Amino acid sequence: MIVVTSPHVPEERIAEIVQYIEKNGVQAHVSRGTDRTVIGIIGKSDPALFEHLREHLQGMKGVENVIKISKSYKLASRDFHPDDTIIEVKGVKIGGDNLVVMGGPCAVETPEQIDEIARLVKAAGGQVLRGGAFKPRTGPYSFQGIGVEGLKWMKEAGDKHGLVTITEVMTPEAVEVCAEYADIMQVGTRNMQNFDLLRKLGTIRKPVLLKRGFSATYDEWLNAAEYILAGGNPNVMLCERGIRTFETYTRNTFDLAAIPVVQQLSHLPVIADPSHATGRRELVETMTKAAVAAGANGLIIEMHTDPDNSATGDGVQSLFPDQFARLLKDLERLAPLAGKKFDTPKEPEEAFRTWKK
Amino acid sequence: MIVVTSPHVPEERIAEIVQYIEKNGVQAHVSRGTDRTVIGIIGKSDPALFEHLREHLQGMKGVENVIKISKSYKLASRDFHPDDTIIEVKGVKIGGDNLVVMGGPCAVETPEQIDEIARLVKAAGGQVLRGGAFKPRTGPYSFQGIGVEGLKWMKEAGDKHGLVTITEVMTPEAVEVCAEYADIMQVGTRNMQNFDLLRKLGTIRKPVLLKRGFSATYDEWLNAAEYILAGGNPNVMLCERGIRTFETYTRNTFDLAAIPVVQQLSHLPVIADPSHATGRRELVETMTKAAVAAGANGLIIEMHTDPDNSATGDGVQSLFPDQFARLLKDLERLAPLAGKKFDTPKEPEEAFRTWKK
Amino acid sequence: MIVVTSPHVPEERIAEIVQYIEKNGVQAHVSRGTDRTVIGIIGKSDPALFEHLREHLQGMKGVENVIKISKSYKLASRDFHPDDTIIEVKGVKIGGDNLVVMGGPCAVETPEQIDEIARLVKAAGGQVLRGGAFKPRTGPYSFQGIGVEGLKWMKEAGDKHGLVTITEVMTPEAVEVCAEYADIMQVGTRNMQNFDLLRKLGTIRKPVLLKRGFSATYDEWLNAAEYILAGGNPNVMLCERGIRTFETYTRNTFDLAAIPVVQQLSHLPVIADPSHATGRRELVETMTKAAVAAGANGLIIEMHTDPDNSATGDGVQSLFPDQFARLLKDLERLAPLAGKKFDTPKEPEEAFRTWKK
Amino acid sequence: MIVVTSPHVPEERIAEIVQYIEKNGVQAHVSRGTDRTVIGIIGKSDPALFEHLREHLQGMKGVENVIKISKSYKLASRDFHPDDTIIEVKGVKIGGDNLVVMGGPCAVETPEQIDEIARLVKAAGGQVLRGGAFKPRTGPYSFQGIGVEGLKWMKEAGDKHGLVTITEVMTPEAVEVCAEYADIMQVGTRNMQNFDLLRKLGTIRKPVLLKRGFSATYDEWLNAAEYILAGGNPNVMLCERGIRTFETYTRNTFDLAAIPVVQQLSHLPVIADPSHATGRRELVETMTKAAVAAGANGLIIEMHTDPDNSATGDGVQSLFPDQFARLLKDLERLAPLAGKKFDTPKEPEEAFRTWKK
Repeated sequence: MIVVTSPHVPEERIAEIVQYIEKNGVQAHVSRGTDRTVIGIIGKSDPALFEHLREHLQGMKGVENVIKISKSYKLASRDFHPDDTIIEVKGVKIGGDNLVVMGGPCAVETPEQIDEIARLVKAAGGQVLRGGAFKPRTGPYSFQGIGVEGLKWMKEAGDKHGLVTITEVMTPEAVEVCAEYADIMQVGTRNMQNFDLLRKLGTIRKPVLLKRGFSATYDEWLNAAEYILAGGNPNVMLCERGIRTFETYTRNTFDLAAIPVVQQLSHLPVIADPSHATGRRELVETMTKAAVAAGANGLIIEMHTDPDNSATGDGVQSLFPDQFARLLKDLERLAPLAGKKFDTPKEPEEAFRTWKK
Repeated sequence: MIVVTSPHVPEERIAEIVQYIEKNGVQAHVSRGTDRTVIGIIGKSDPALFEHLREHLQGMKGVENVIKISKSYKLASRDFHPDDTIIEVKGVKIGGDNLVVMGGPCAVETPEQIDEIARLVKAAGGQVLRGGAFKPRTGPYSFQGIGVEGLKWMKEAGDKHGLVTITEVMTPEAVEVCAEYADIMQVGTRNMQNFDLLRKLGTIRKPVLLKRGFSATYDEWLNAAEYILAGGNPNVMLCERGIRTFETYTRNTFDLAAIPVVQQLSHLPVIADPSHATGRRELVETMTKAAVAAGANGLIIEMHTDPDNSATGDGVQSLFPDQFARLLKDLERLAPLAGKKFDTPKEPEEAFRTWKK
Repeated sequence: MIVVTSPHVPEERIAEIVQYIEKNGVQAHVSRGTDRTVIGIIGKSDPALFEHLREHLQGMKGVENVIKISKSYKLASRDFHPDDTIIEVKGVKIGGDNLVVMGGPCAVETPEQIDEIARLVKAAGGQVLRGGAFKPRTGPYSFQGIGVEGLKWMKEAGDKHGLVTITEVMTPEAVEVCAEYADIMQVGTRNMQNFDLLRKLGTIRKPVLLKRGFSATYDEWLNAAEYILAGGNPNVMLCERGIRTFETYTRNTFDLAAIPVVQQLSHLPVIADPSHATGRRELVETMTKAAVAAGANGLIIEMHTDPDNSATGDGVQSLFPDQFARLLKDLERLAPLAGKKFDTPKEPEEAFRTWKK
Repeated sequence: MIVVTSPHVPEERIAEIVQYIEKNGVQAHVSRGTDRTVIGIIGKSDPALFEHLREHLQGMKGVENVIKISKSYKLASRDFHPDDTIIEVKGVKIGGDNLVVMGGPCAVETPEQIDEIARLVKAAGGQVLRGGAFKPRTGPYSFQGIGVEGLKWMKEAGDKHGLVTITEVMTPEAVEVCAEYADIMQVGTRNMQNFDLLRKLGTIRKPVLLKRGFSATYDEWLNAAEYILAGGNPNVMLCERGIRTFETYTRNTFDLAAIPVVQQLSHLPVIADPSHATGRRELVETMTKAAVAAGANGLIIEMHTDPDNSATGDGVQSLFPDQFARLLKDLERLAPLAGKKFDTPKEPEEAFRTWKK
């Protein structure tokens, strides 16, 4: 951490700053420039101490700027944990050179719907079934999800077809019931900084998929992961799902460079969500491939047997089952070029022959 | 609401769309252009129905775009409630031509700190005491607030000095205890779309100050207010606190045009937060005046007796007590030019004479 | 300037970096941390040298980051020129405690139009007549301006009514003819980094109003001013006209904090453009007042006698003449509260009685 | 185009709007809703007329909003020109299922530098040599390019090694000299809306690579292309090079979805620039692959034999020659999965054996 003073600060001010730093058990190195003085803070790398110092120093008189050199998170950092984290759920490995595909509807609607979609996800080569039972909606008059009943239907479908399941959890209180029925807990983009929810998820051991807030920096995202890790749950995966920018033609701007950047900064697996990132079905296939080429450890893709009648209106971004199956065939060929392993069943066509639009 | 088709959509597709619209009890007006067809939806203004229609229509084949003409919120809209909402708390009026000033520290630290600051807020002419007991922090290693004890100290200080109090509530479960001690519940920028919290706040009657999410559109902000209003609590005020943009010199970009825009769209009072919007003490005075000139119904301003040693590091944006008092004197002269009433005590100097930096 | 190395860089790398710095005639101060080493560069403040160093250093092996401490511009900086620049044009003073109002149509259309508008600007108390003869338009099929003929009409109107004139210049070649007819040269938002145009404007002495690029940082904006100043023309004023953000309800987001920030960083006058910043007539009055309260040295406001039939479609943001006159009356009362002087004629009503919508 | 009125507009206002539309030779279809009236404009698709109408209508009283349904550009649109444009330069095809790789330094520095880099670009399988002779720089004190001499050196290197050449042209006057020496004219991000430059490039026939403005929407970008096409030059390719967002860790946010989106909207080839989009060498390889997977028709990549000593400081984003060659080998395997053709020479190793870092 570096403290930059205002121009021409008197010596006694500098002495006060140095004294404050040193009474906290770290060292201060002073470099006097022509206008400003730069004070480097050196010592054991303790994020809590450095955060405390930063907060105080930037309010002190004579301080123009405090610049972080080391990161404010630790457990999420690759400096601290150089090897890739590989999360294993019911035999499915997430992280490292594995490619995982999560597919399914935006919302669970009926037992038949989720069962049929699960069958098709499995037939296409997907390993995880996604589906929402509680839905975060911008307005109070939109469909808010089926609730616990939907979790049960999804669990049955997952068990029957041999799929791991993932569902969104929106509140600390819902963590228990969601963890009872689903294998992976998803934190949505609007909840990335719902700190009570993050703390609660730190107390369980089920894996958590943490979506990036649609306006969160990489640093804020990794700090949010740090909340879960610091609570004792090491099974965190990150999910890039698009950010908000001035361009509104696509629902969000898919920040694919986030994948290699965050893989450098952190050891946690990075999943990409091309459905929410683009919001348009005709872009999902192309951007899924781009995400794999960018090094994603997995994908979470919306697929629906009847998107025109989806309960949430996200049908517009859901793939049809046959599109989904073709896409996974393409990923099988693409994955090795990105250093990843991914296999699809030999003859998925049979499964799709019995599906009627 | 308007449905725009893709170019050269076959007649039977258009018929399907029209049929879907009309079976929902509203009318469809079809205008055929050279390439695209435009279908207007006309009927009783029911946001829930229109939201449902929009969600389904935008997923239907042959639909290129669905454009909302009327708003997706109702209770928050000035169309529905043409007169300004005026919220009264312990004799303080918020809304209409009243100007309200809320001042105080980022975080409650000790009983002495909050008592002394309350004394100075009152002496300067402020009507509301702000102070956080639970703090939302980006990283898990930052100071997280004093907790319930802090709420008690603030209540005592408010009662003693005749000030209304406001504090941030971060979770549905904390609503009860916060509402026991404080007069106004504040929802922070990261919680603007914490829908469970909003629903819970709809069940109480204490006023709620809803901060704009730092990347929320006006529409999303008013929809968040709608959650509280729809729950039965009519006492909502909005708070502009800066948005996230490419410019990082200031902590946020203070979107002052939000004030007149939201006052046109809605009847709810709009408060401005120049402290978080700028993040720099030397800008707070100027931007407070600009907010009043832009028509704000009130201000929420950080003030601290010893900002260099503030617990949260937000000291850098806190005014000193004498600055705060001078600023309120300026507002007394400025308010009438913006059609607002604001008075400060005749001789605040006495109060400040006893304050030592 | 500070160089931060990658973690655990070998000593010989650090030696190379230090050697490179010192052979350029400045000093290197090395602070070794536990992971990274920080090298401060200290010496005479020469932006050209520092820019050269920064460019090379950030490409060197072992360098993680190069952080600028001092500014990359000099002549535009308040450090270099502590007193406010006051530009005088035909007796009108711009800068310091003077408030200047520039009013007029988006585009010059006919001699009668510009003459009538000039009369009304003068009657209301404005000092400068604005009007475009060459218009920058997003698409090639939009109205592109009247050309040189328009400049002549505007000059006649300005001379007749005793107003200074300002017009937009879009290319280096057009500088000469614009400078022949108009008093102030305006650089539009899309041309803020048209470096050839800036260099050309550095060779004349007529004042230049430099609009902020709609996505330019404060630093880029002041560097653009530096191009003009470095060419020898000291008469530069800056103009905040709104930036592009995710919020699209208003045409741009009016970044009013830019006014006090840039006035701190620089000695140049700052003008505000509420018309382009909001794009909506009903917001212009309020946001003009907010800009004055924020400390603007002047305003540039669109006004039109028949906005419904304006040639450019910017009519939607143009004030009517009587609105404009009322607004200037309000500014007369507001200016002193912001430390500015502004007077309007005693009886403007006469002038407006003869104006027919 | 659709006109939406304000709520409860009187009939005579609607009649005026309809009358205005119809006197322009197009039809108005009126749909009366409960609050607002919607007027569809139907007729021959003439962008110039529609732009003119839009500009006037949005300023008319009683009009709340004017919504474009058809596009404001025509020649750039795939509706107008359904087949992919394929540009041929000296035997190199750009567009359709061809993948083109452009490589070279940010700036031409010496004849030896550009000759050696040209040799290595060719050996690796690149078809086009990039290099800047005139450089747009944020500050006036940065290196501004070698000038015409650099163009000559690049032409010699291109001729000698059998490469097409591309260089940036910054002003209308420089078009002639650049077109004399280079094969493709590049328009930089800051000049995307330099309309005089675009008009000038419409008068030549050499191909133009039009970079997206770093804050330009897709619509503005295609309108800028329309300026060149409308001038008579059909040889335009577009280049996505990253946009400015709140995330500043990478130099820009690489908007890869722009590739499939713009390929849907337009028939023009889309090139990707991973060097400027990321600004970090270690991300360039990964993001190049992602761009190809996203369907790019080509790449423009910075490569330098001695990036640590590059003249412009963009060395930090330049690949080393061996990295560049390995990357092109990878693209050879990746291209077919994206439906593209790309071949590299059988044994490039020889060429690289003679290159010494």
